[in-house]
Amino acid sequence: MSSHKLTSLQSQMKIEAGTVAHSLENFIKEHVTKLDREGAILGLSGGLDSAVVAALCQRAVGAGQTLALLMPEKDSQKEHLKDALDLARKLKIETKIIDIVPYLKQLGAYQLFELNRLPLPQPLKGALVNKAYRYYARKTGEPPFAASLLGFKDKEFSTYLSKGLAYCRLKHRVRMMLLYLYGELENRLVIGTANRTEHEIGFFVKHGCDDAVDVMPLLNLYKTQVIELAAYLKIPSRIINKNPSPDIIPGLIDEEAIGIPYAELDLILPALANQWPEHEIAEALKIGAEKISYVKNLVRKSAHMRQVYTP
Amino acid sequence: MSSHKLTSLQSQMKIEAGTVAHSLENFIKEHVTKLDREGAILGLSGGLDSAVVAALCQRAVGAGQTLALLMPEKDSQKEHLKDALDLARKLKIETKIIDIVPYLKQLGAYQLFELNRLPLPQPLKGALVNKAYRYYARKTGEPPFAASLLGFKDKEFSTYLSKGLAYCRLKHRVRMMLLYLYGELENRLVIGTANRTEHEIGFFVKHGCDDAVDVMPLLNLYKTQVIELAAYLKIPSRIINKNPSPDIIPGLIDEEAIGIPYAELDLILPALANQWPEHEIAEALKIGAEKISYVKNLVRKSAHMRQVYTP
Repeated sequence: MSSHKLTSLQSQMKIEAGTVAHSLENFIKEHVTKLDREGAILGLSGGLDSAVVAALCQRAVGAGQTLALLMPEKDSQKEHLKDALDLARKLKIETKIIDIVPYLKQLGAYQLFELNRLPLPQPLKGALVNKAYRYYARKTGEPPFAASLLGFKDKEFSTYLSKGLAYCRLKHRVRMMLLYLYGELENRLVIGTANRTEHEIGFFVKHGCDDAVDVMPLLNLYKTQVIELAAYLKIPSRIINKNPSPDIIPGLIDEEAIGIPYAELDLILPALANQWPEHEIAEALKIGAEKISYVKNLVRKSAHMRQVYTP
Repeated sequence: MSSHKLTSLQSQMKIEAGTVAHSLENFIKEHVTKLDREGAILGLSGGLDSAVVAALCQRAVGAGQTLALLMPEKDSQKEHLKDALDLARKLKIETKIIDIVPYLKQLGAYQLFELNRLPLPQPLKGALVNKAYRYYARKTGEPPFAASLLGFKDKEFSTYLSKGLAYCRLKHRVRMMLLYLYGELENRLVIGTANRTEHEIGFFVKHGCDDAVDVMPLLNLYKTQVIELAAYLKIPSRIINKNPSPDIIPGLIDEEAIGIPYAELDLILPALANQWPEHEIAEALKIGAEKISYVKNLVRKSAHMRQVYTP
């Protein structure tokens, strides 16, 4: 039975990329019209999701009406900026590069992250972040990302972690502000790049550039489905094949930060959405039950990031 | 019949302030606990709504656990800062004054607003803003606020207006960013101050400090009900009696900007919520039908500000 269930889940996850692309283009076009805008604006990071959204916008409203903001800062990897620029050139969409370092400096952001006090090269910084990340996970039983979804009350780590988090989150909130600034000056709709996987587990910055937008075309697609869509849209394989990373702090890639590979997440999440009991999911996917509880816990703890509570 | 309807509407609007205050305190306390926070943070402007929220936080989590950020800039009126400080002192809550001018300067904000190029005193600037505001309303048939809810396509005014709007909105987005920065560093819940009236008509900055928060305790209360609550909470009469203003651009108060007094809005909106036909509302409230359509239009045009669209 369980292998039958797995097969049905896998077939449920299949998308007809051409149809999906067409309907998402319509979705973007409709909302640009409905909200009386004259074009689209998005943040282009060099990663997969924003590459797909850029291609969809270009098809929806035209290359001339699509503006991509590239907003690197000290911790951004150069290769991502290059990939973003190459893609924009290929799509013939407009770009504006805005170095956000001055804004972050003004906010005192770089002083929040202890490792910035030392004159370390980025790779070494990355290795140290990674070590500290794993150390925390071993000591406390959950990775910092999972702990960060609610408030930190752990006295031993809280100062470092709160500062590190505030450091990361400022970056995405500055980016959101700039997207709206240029969006408003040029009457463009702000197009978000969040996918369903990261949205459901809270792997985004609350009220940051991957959350506070006008529309979210990819929100119904899990990460692995976005990869399928990317292939259909002929996104360069360099972008499709790179290891997804928030590119927000040196050394941390998505799957390391989350603690579970997307391939597993994208079966666990739809199985949970189907309301399968945890033990059946574990059996069907042949993974430990503790992983299912962990994912369920991420969904529960991040609920506040998907809504503002009112009485 | 219509006078009976009016009476029933008025009685429906009555609140038992003590009961409401108590339940909102519980709401705040519960969410601080539920989200594992150790206190509350809010932006205190010197206006009515944030004063009420400050008092509720103080009662909910204690004065020592309530931090109020005061974030003035060039266009902020001095008296509002003074009122905010006086209130904080009375409530014995912590305050931090953050001059947001350097952040706005870095973003080029002050250059966005044409009147800033001239060395005019604030009152004169205010008078000119007001004149321009009314001129636009007369020329186009709707005040700039109503036009601003969707994109500007009016070529004659769009550059000035888009810049003016981007100017105003940057301020509230910078404030949001700072509220989250300090909230995250000190593990506090970000408490919003939006009321139902302004939320329903879109009189707020999308993803700004009156929108992008963790909880919104006042969201079920119309402005006039917040005034009742303020009296119960012994908010100083200076704050209760001042003319509500966004304090975001010289010379503009809420009722002038919106085009309808709160006393009328707070009957029209609940009547619309009760699904009364427009002509019955007009008859019962003895106001022109065009006012009802105008309010209905604000609600419709601002729908995108209360949700992020997904496919």
